[in-house]
Amino acid sequence: MTQFTKRTPDGDTHERAVCDQCGYVAYENPKVVVGSVVVHEGKVLLCRRAIEPRRGYWTIPAGYLELHETVEEGGARLKLDGILAVFSISRIGQVQVIFRARFDGAADFAPGVESLDVRLFDWADIPWDELAFPSVHWSLHAWRSAGDGLLGAPAGNPPADRRGLSPETPVKASI
Amino acid sequence: MTQFTKRTPDGDTHERAVCDQCGYVAYENPKVVVGSVVVHEGKVLLCRRAIEPRRGYWTIPAGYLELHETVEEGGARLKLDGILAVFSISRIGQVQVIFRARFDGAADFAPGVESLDVRLFDWADIPWDELAFPSVHWSLHAWRSAGDGLLGAPAGNPPADRRGLSPETPVKASI
Repeated sequence: MTQFTKRTPDGDTHERAVCDQCGYVAYENPKVVVGSVVVHEGKVLLCRRAIEPRRGYWTIPAGYLELHETVEEGGARLKLDGILAVFSISRIGQVQVIFRARFDGAADFAPGVESLDVRLFDWADIPWDELAFPSVHWSLHAWRSAGDGLLGAPAGNPPADRRGLSPETPVKASI
Repeated sequence: MTQFTKRTPDGDTHERAVCDQCGYVAYENPKVVVGSVVVHEGKVLLCRRAIEPRRGYWTIPAGYLELHETVEEGGARLKLDGILAVFSISRIGQVQVIFRARFDGAADFAPGVESLDVRLFDWADIPWDELAFPSVHWSLHAWRSAGDGLLGAPAGNPPADRRGLSPETPVKASI
């Protein structure tokens, strides 16, 4: 079993997990999640999660960006309008880049292995109490604010909503 | 010495580096760089790099986001106007979030350990041939396009400029 000890390597400013045996430094950086608010005829696409965490709850299509992918490739098979929001979920080391998107071609969709169900919802029918994460709320509200026209500057974390932030995050980290 | 073998773990879709001895999976994801075009009285702040790569060349202030930081904290000690651009440098697994920023207080600055020099430049005096990275060019041009007023949707990679992209990236990855 590899044993890691937390220490600050020479010339570094942060503690890292360093292997006791070989000195390998396991840098841990935030991961990028790319998601999309997919809009079709005024409705929005939501997926019911088939996997933990939050199995059974609804989310927008999203996933971790893989190494050597661009953020646009992370939103592949959709027609991306532009960036709607950039959220930091610093508690769990995530940066989320949320696009506004449409189907690239017909509105053909079916649940993949990570979804129990996929549906288009009118705003009034969105299952608000069964959304998987705060950032799903934020994304949907960012879309509602931006509308379907030209996109302005992307939304950030709502200043008053500290869910997802590290305890160390200053109260007013908003831009 | 830890020995890693490239293989696809069960239930995964990508090859990962897996330790031969203990099965530790070294996930490698893109890293987030947070940078700022810092504007003061119509001039822009550039830093001459004291470190490799591109020692001696000019760049905007930028750095890797640390785990449990928000993107706004990554741009700390500046007053952030908003997000000017999101670039993907997929060849080296980076996503860059570039803010437009001002000094938070007086325009007090001096080179840190990673810089040989720090200066404010008029647009006409920017050392274009001595900029460290393509994304410094892109950031400065994104600022020039956006001006100093309200920020619109952030810029992405210039569609015709493939520097920094993975060879696998489709030619038209722009949004």
